[in-house]
Amino acid sequence: MAKEITPREENYSQWYNDIVKKAGLIEHSPVRGCMIIKPHGYAIWENIKAQLDKMFKETGHVNAYFPLLIPKSFLSKEAEHVEGFAKECAVVTHHRLMNNPDGPGVVVDPTAKLEEELIIRPTSETIIWDTYRNWIKSYRDLPLLINQWANVMRWEMRTRPFLRTAEFLWQEGHTAHATQTEAVEEARKMHEVYARFAEDYMAMPVIKGAKSDSERFAGAEDTYTIEAMMQDGKALQAGTSHFLGQNFAKAFDVKYLDANNKEHLVWATSWGVSTRLIGALIMTHSDDDGLVIPPRLAATQVAIVPIPKPNEVINEVTQQIMGELRSAGISVIYDDDKKKRPGFKFAEHEMRGIPVRIGIGMRDLENNVVEVARRDTKEKTSVPVDGIAQYVENLLEEIQANLFNKAKAFREEHSHECSTYEEFKALLEGKGGFIYANWDGTPETELAIKEETGATIRCIPDDNSTPTGPCMYSGKEAKYRVLYAKAY
Amino acid sequence: MAKEITPREENYSQWYNDIVKKAGLIEHSPVRGCMIIKPHGYAIWENIKAQLDKMFKETGHVNAYFPLLIPKSFLSKEAEHVEGFAKECAVVTHHRLMNNPDGPGVVVDPTAKLEEELIIRPTSETIIWDTYRNWIKSYRDLPLLINQWANVMRWEMRTRPFLRTAEFLWQEGHTAHATQTEAVEEARKMHEVYARFAEDYMAMPVIKGAKSDSERFAGAEDTYTIEAMMQDGKALQAGTSHFLGQNFAKAFDVKYLDANNKEHLVWATSWGVSTRLIGALIMTHSDDDGLVIPPRLAATQVAIVPIPKPNEVINEVTQQIMGELRSAGISVIYDDDKKKRPGFKFAEHEMRGIPVRIGIGMRDLENNVVEVARRDTKEKTSVPVDGIAQYVENLLEEIQANLFNKAKAFREEHSHECSTYEEFKALLEGKGGFIYANWDGTPETELAIKEETGATIRCIPDDNSTPTGPCMYSGKEAKYRVLYAKAY
Repeated sequence: MAKEITPREENYSQWYNDIVKKAGLIEHSPVRGCMIIKPHGYAIWENIKAQLDKMFKETGHVNAYFPLLIPKSFLSKEAEHVEGFAKECAVVTHHRLMNNPDGPGVVVDPTAKLEEELIIRPTSETIIWDTYRNWIKSYRDLPLLINQWANVMRWEMRTRPFLRTAEFLWQEGHTAHATQTEAVEEARKMHEVYARFAEDYMAMPVIKGAKSDSERFAGAEDTYTIEAMMQDGKALQAGTSHFLGQNFAKAFDVKYLDANNKEHLVWATSWGVSTRLIGALIMTHSDDDGLVIPPRLAATQVAIVPIPKPNEVINEVTQQIMGELRSAGISVIYDDDKKKRPGFKFAEHEMRGIPVRIGIGMRDLENNVVEVARRDTKEKTSVPVDGIAQYVENLLEEIQANLFNKAKAFREEHSHECSTYEEFKALLEGKGGFIYANWDGTPETELAIKEETGATIRCIPDDNSTPTGPCMYSGKEAKYRVLYAKAY
Repeated sequence: MAKEITPREENYSQWYNDIVKKAGLIEHSPVRGCMIIKPHGYAIWENIKAQLDKMFKETGHVNAYFPLLIPKSFLSKEAEHVEGFAKECAVVTHHRLMNNPDGPGVVVDPTAKLEEELIIRPTSETIIWDTYRNWIKSYRDLPLLINQWANVMRWEMRTRPFLRTAEFLWQEGHTAHATQTEAVEEARKMHEVYARFAEDYMAMPVIKGAKSDSERFAGAEDTYTIEAMMQDGKALQAGTSHFLGQNFAKAFDVKYLDANNKEHLVWATSWGVSTRLIGALIMTHSDDDGLVIPPRLAATQVAIVPIPKPNEVINEVTQQIMGELRSAGISVIYDDDKKKRPGFKFAEHEMRGIPVRIGIGMRDLENNVVEVARRDTKEKTSVPVDGIAQYVENLLEEIQANLFNKAKAFREEHSHECSTYEEFKALLEGKGGFIYANWDGTPETELAIKEETGATIRCIPDDNSTPTGPCMYSGKEAKYRVLYAKAY
């Protein structure tokens, strides 16, 4: 099976496409740019969702659900927002089909034209702030801390599974606050939650920082981002949290009365992560044998394979081991299919990224041991059946930590400080990676570098953004030390 | 607060609308027929979802996600299905907006017309069976047991919150099997899961049965339903499970090779429940003081109210009690808002349906007791602080059981056996309810009764559908004893 995957060195992009397909994560759909998320891929999303939802609730948020369709006129209420979002989107114009009078099939009923067209949400700020106008009257109604799990749609021209698709699944938090300070704190807090989730659960180290003006969300005053490095050295924006100022409150006339009965505009944030995270997960950890899933997000953490096939003795030991693993909160399957050979099963579980495999054979059982193989390093160890649950529990933690450390070491190896533009271009033409350099803070410099090299400012890092010299490009005084990279 | 609700006796329909609005479950949206599900309403859906998802997984199903948009041509592939579904639906015809050349705002870009229109899924059989064609090649690929949690849209002319909305949230199971027997078993099994969920979690007794030909799902060979009685005596179809025969396999050419390399069409089922369940929940248990939520589906099971307001002693006892309740797996909030009086809080928690309220006052604390009030019966009891968690745990179970028993007693009281059509009409004109009567099995009789009385055959009950005499309407030999009722 593993041979079916194109090696990274040969064609990174094809390697990615092979993984998503052959690990059973997605299937292309008959609808342009939309993906079918297969059970194995959706299980990763379910685990991402469960953990993030827990973290959102722990930070005081509740979930709600707003309509899929947004009246066209809403989109143009916030001037910058419409520029960023209202263009490439799915437009509903009719509400009925009828039998084709001229032949088989159905056609759109021309009499069922909508008075105002509806847009499938590309994001929900507009419909949510239109609603918040009714929910927020007094300072007592604030803060309003709401999140939504939903599907959204952006009519992208060039799509890639998980990374950029017309329809995708995501969560969007939309909060309302009495003061600017509180709103900024909220945006920062969720930025921190995303970073913690990425590092602790996805085992994916991230650089936290703020976006430059040109890379900000349409309608935001500040966008905080987490940026991860993929195995080809490119950056991937994994989650963003926006301080929206009073832009949406102004556009939708959302005001509150303070304790002294004085009226104020409300302050806002929004923040989101999407199924794109699955793409990030794949490109951070997987290898030429297939997918690698960090144990904390794996729906199946352990696969047990009988060697060479199931029999009564092996089944009994397996049942015992499965019981012990499950008691320890570890998810496990028994692959007792008699029609497939162990080697085939090994390759299949590797392809699908199961963190730990336990092989159980009669010879090993004579010594009361089983063979434990870890997906990350491919190491195999003979382990006593006694105490196996504790061993596997520790091993899963070790794999989780190892994946993070490996990804972090990779990132460090491919991160560079750069003081001249020549050096910068040479790095980008070579191995790429993250490049820290001084920037004069002007959009002109940013744009010129982007056009000349394809690299963008990924963020102004939260840590250590003090310039160490003049702007690499213009030679003028630098405003920040920023992170440049080519990006997904 | 409670006074704001129209009593059921006065205007049942207005009572329902008052509850959904005043208990904070929904908000009308600017998009026709679409609802905004507010946090308190969405929390009920989250609990419904969590429990059902667990039951689906325990019965071997996995989740996946299929595209929101369906090519128009797919809908007409299954002849009956298109009649039932392809008509009133949201049609996407364009994929871009542009700045209005004649003024402010945005307009649809006429050059961005789609080659083939796309339909927002009213249900996903077509796109899923189009996909299954690629996934099913051999008997080894069967059964395929997939479920999807999603939003769907049907352009309903008359909508009511939760009960009938243009967009709603649901789950749709779609399974594929090698044999008819297996597929029928699957449809029956999920029918059973729905009934168990309705009774054990929603505390809502249901009648299980099969739909008559005319009430079946478009494209199904058999539809199994669970029917519940609302407090106005009307029936509500709460969940359906369909045996689809080979209709979709034929329409989408899905075949498998058996062990002898012989080709067969695949057998199918589909089954779904939706946010409609929340409407059923409301109309089964709530009263003139507001919502009543069964403890097993309540996001907040206990509200603690300081009397008359919080102080250090009360706070300390509360923290201790909350700790004990949470250790027992009970969800609890402390309503320590100093600006509201206890009476206001009591009414508010009643309105929102919190199963148990604990009042903590200084005088009671001198005797080391607190006041425990249950939402279902409004009874108040003085309960020792010592052992409070155990008391509340038992009480929650008692409330759950009481709600079920009360609803069941109500249903029995309003269920009638009927042998003449005059009696039948008199019952319907009076208190309504469920009426069991003999039916000759013809669609003509069914239709005549529907047109003359508004009552429909809700189901041919699984238990006791043997006729006890001739058809009540035609006087001909009866085929079944069926359940008639007016329905939502």
